[in-house]
Amino acid sequence: MAQAKRITPRAQDYSEWYNDVIMQAELADYSPVRGCMVIRPHGYMLWELMQRALDDMFKATGHKNAYFPLFIPMSFLAKEAQHVEGFAKEVALVTHTRLRATGKPGAQAIEVDPDSKLEEPLVVRPTSETIIYAMFSKWIQSYRDLPLLLNQWCNVVRWELRTRLFLRTTEFLWQEGHTAHATEAEAETEARQMLGIYRKFQEEWMAMPVITGRKTESERFAGALRTFAVEALMQDNKALQAGTAHNLGQNFAKAFNVQYQTPAGGLEYVWNTSWGVTTRMIGGLIMTHSDDNGLICPPRLAPIQVVIVPIWKSDEEYSQVSAVGLRVKTELEKAGIRVELDLRDSLKPGAKYFEWEAKGVPLRLEVGPRDVAAKQMMGARRIGGKAPVMLEDIAPRVAAALAEIQAQLFKSAKDRREAHSIRGVTKAQFIDLMKGEGGFAFGGFCGSAKCEAEIKQATAATIRVLPDAEFQSPEVPKLCMWCGSPSIAEAVWAQAY
Amino acid sequence: MAQAKRITPRAQDYSEWYNDVIMQAELADYSPVRGCMVIRPHGYMLWELMQRALDDMFKATGHKNAYFPLFIPMSFLAKEAQHVEGFAKEVALVTHTRLRATGKPGAQAIEVDPDSKLEEPLVVRPTSETIIYAMFSKWIQSYRDLPLLLNQWCNVVRWELRTRLFLRTTEFLWQEGHTAHATEAEAETEARQMLGIYRKFQEEWMAMPVITGRKTESERFAGALRTFAVEALMQDNKALQAGTAHNLGQNFAKAFNVQYQTPAGGLEYVWNTSWGVTTRMIGGLIMTHSDDNGLICPPRLAPIQVVIVPIWKSDEEYSQVSAVGLRVKTELEKAGIRVELDLRDSLKPGAKYFEWEAKGVPLRLEVGPRDVAAKQMMGARRIGGKAPVMLEDIAPRVAAALAEIQAQLFKSAKDRREAHSIRGVTKAQFIDLMKGEGGFAFGGFCGSAKCEAEIKQATAATIRVLPDAEFQSPEVPKLCMWCGSPSIAEAVWAQAY
Repeated sequence: MAQAKRITPRAQDYSEWYNDVIMQAELADYSPVRGCMVIRPHGYMLWELMQRALDDMFKATGHKNAYFPLFIPMSFLAKEAQHVEGFAKEVALVTHTRLRATGKPGAQAIEVDPDSKLEEPLVVRPTSETIIYAMFSKWIQSYRDLPLLLNQWCNVVRWELRTRLFLRTTEFLWQEGHTAHATEAEAETEARQMLGIYRKFQEEWMAMPVITGRKTESERFAGALRTFAVEALMQDNKALQAGTAHNLGQNFAKAFNVQYQTPAGGLEYVWNTSWGVTTRMIGGLIMTHSDDNGLICPPRLAPIQVVIVPIWKSDEEYSQVSAVGLRVKTELEKAGIRVELDLRDSLKPGAKYFEWEAKGVPLRLEVGPRDVAAKQMMGARRIGGKAPVMLEDIAPRVAAALAEIQAQLFKSAKDRREAHSIRGVTKAQFIDLMKGEGGFAFGGFCGSAKCEAEIKQATAATIRVLPDAEFQSPEVPKLCMWCGSPSIAEAVWAQAY
Repeated sequence: MAQAKRITPRAQDYSEWYNDVIMQAELADYSPVRGCMVIRPHGYMLWELMQRALDDMFKATGHKNAYFPLFIPMSFLAKEAQHVEGFAKEVALVTHTRLRATGKPGAQAIEVDPDSKLEEPLVVRPTSETIIYAMFSKWIQSYRDLPLLLNQWCNVVRWELRTRLFLRTTEFLWQEGHTAHATEAEAETEARQMLGIYRKFQEEWMAMPVITGRKTESERFAGALRTFAVEALMQDNKALQAGTAHNLGQNFAKAFNVQYQTPAGGLEYVWNTSWGVTTRMIGGLIMTHSDDNGLICPPRLAPIQVVIVPIWKSDEEYSQVSAVGLRVKTELEKAGIRVELDLRDSLKPGAKYFEWEAKGVPLRLEVGPRDVAAKQMMGARRIGGKAPVMLEDIAPRVAAALAEIQAQLFKSAKDRREAHSIRGVTKAQFIDLMKGEGGFAFGGFCGSAKCEAEIKQATAATIRVLPDAEFQSPEVPKLCMWCGSPSIAEAVWAQAY
């Protein structure tokens, strides 16, 4: 199906490179609907693997999945003032419910039936705080009903003007966790816990190192008390916000009257959190690892972890190598390894290598007649390196190779991020960095929105997070790197997606 | 959270009973959005288990999951004439993309921004044939690209006027398979295969016996050549269409120009199939098995298969029974059994039994101090029957009990269906049956749409399917049971959901 098109090198055009990687790996495609993409099987399998891993972590921490309506009455959105302000400019609105013939001849002669106008327009959910907390007010009566820990996997729509495959699309897939707690401290702990789960998933599964921390007011979620985020650095040294967790305080509880009876008999508003990650993570995975030959996928999330490519000339050779290929495939599958055996006779081995490299398969096992004789296969790693793998006990050998590749990918990505991070940045260095190759700049911040705005205006950089202790510099900056006033917190700036 | 409300008995009000079972089991709830429901954790877990089982079967037969846009341009729907006619009256239409303040004071003073009107309205997908086959025309070039076997799990919207929890909601969750084949025969085989998978799932997992067969023209999917269906008989003797598979012929291929080059170099239109099952199946499961005490859930799909209820008076007894409970829980979990240990001290054992029965847990294990001494637990089955279960090797004992319950549920449901099926029905019997208690009526059918319409008018019964050979009567009917003309096929009539 894919044409063997060359991928634009990163150095030539990073943005073209990104799109080419996606198209060649058949992860996604443009759809005829403005800003909406089609997630193709290889990309969707990646998403399913991400979902499975995250879902297990959510469930292990006591969360349960549920499903809430796609549509939200317009008036609900308006109940939390900041919330509606944040989303009003980018919502898809359902206003009618029937089509009718125009009377003109021709198959396409249909139009919206004006008689089917809804009394109240419905918003296609951009996020579900309002509809979910409306239900919470029905379900929560007593402290015994708390905490309530729910999550949903669904599609959401935000009418974006400029879209990029996976990174920013009008419709995207995500999970949104929504919880209710008796106290602010519990809500804070929950938001923090989920941020930790995102970090664990992104580092251990995606092999994508992240910085965790708190957002400043200007980057806070519309309606939240505090927003926490995980931020990763892409290969073009731009930051990608890869997930957020919000302590919503009692804002939505007050808007939707979510109250509970305390053990003492009093009535209190609950404290909510919400947290989410999206198909955007696939964009992050691509831009963390891939190269000019296409996708590089960390083994734990690779839809195909191993491809076996038999090499033959005669029919006799074919029966030899295909038999060994099939046997190894079965062995690897038994060990829980996702493996493909490529027996197509319409393609030469070189063309197959090209295709599986573009698709990001971590390990290729080539097997020709000489390998069969030597009781081995030739293992070629997607990140470089070729060495024979003995057929005896091949499953644990392959599993070990995959674990090694996983670890190497994380290390490389972390080394790259560190190489593009400046600590104790000065204003001059900062301006140079943002004009130049970009990266994470750690520096003092005075806390003023004015400074933030000025910096954004001058350099297009924003504060990604006020980093958590673990990511803070050994020397606490004393002054704002921009205005020189006393610093209230260390900040990490970058230009961002 | 749930109030211990009595469930309306079936005999008193079947429809109330159905709603009560759902509310008491906390499967779903009404939402503030007209016709849309909230699927609560217990119901969603049931859906997840259904998804997992079906998805494994789809993948085992070579299908891959993908994701296509929620929105479909209005003009796409119009490209297949019957298709648009079938859906025009029940589509949610997105026409605008921004909200604005009305200028009036007050938080709710927002309105649709008329300046944000879309050039072409977007239809919220009622089904995805049109958008998917538009993509197929891009991806399919050669016979080598066939068959293309895709599936998506997603939400769809059909603007229904009268809605019922799970059975008919404005938004529902489903899977829709979409495939392209080189020949009509292959498409027919595929549609038939998927019907077989639905039957297997519904009989072996849901313990819901079904009849498979072909729909008549009047009940065919809008745009299909042939529609096949699985039909089940509920406890009120009404039929539920529980899944459909369509041979779409070349109708959509022609509308969306999906052509492939044959090995000989010619150009041909592909043959498509589509097939789907929905959250409606949960309604089917409820109405197949449940009783006046609430949900009865077949063990293979039960979110909680076993609940352990310890019984104690003193602290000493508590530490005894809770320790045993915890040990057994761990043992059962290790064996892959979904188990809950109910240690709440706010409820008496009787209240707990009541709650877990309403939730449909197949097996309850009660353990008091005397049971501990006797090295046993008391096993109470949701479908009746109490017997001690020895603690030694308890996991295989419990697994065997669950398998027995599963088989009993299927047998009871099948016996009930057979008891409410009439073979070789006469017109007089038919009228009596449909006026009376209902059921499946097997009889001869002349093939005329006029007869079908008359029957529907007179009795509200429709032909559910022209049954497959396996379900046909030993004696082939010779005459139409209604008009007495020669019969062209045996039909199964029923009043239906």
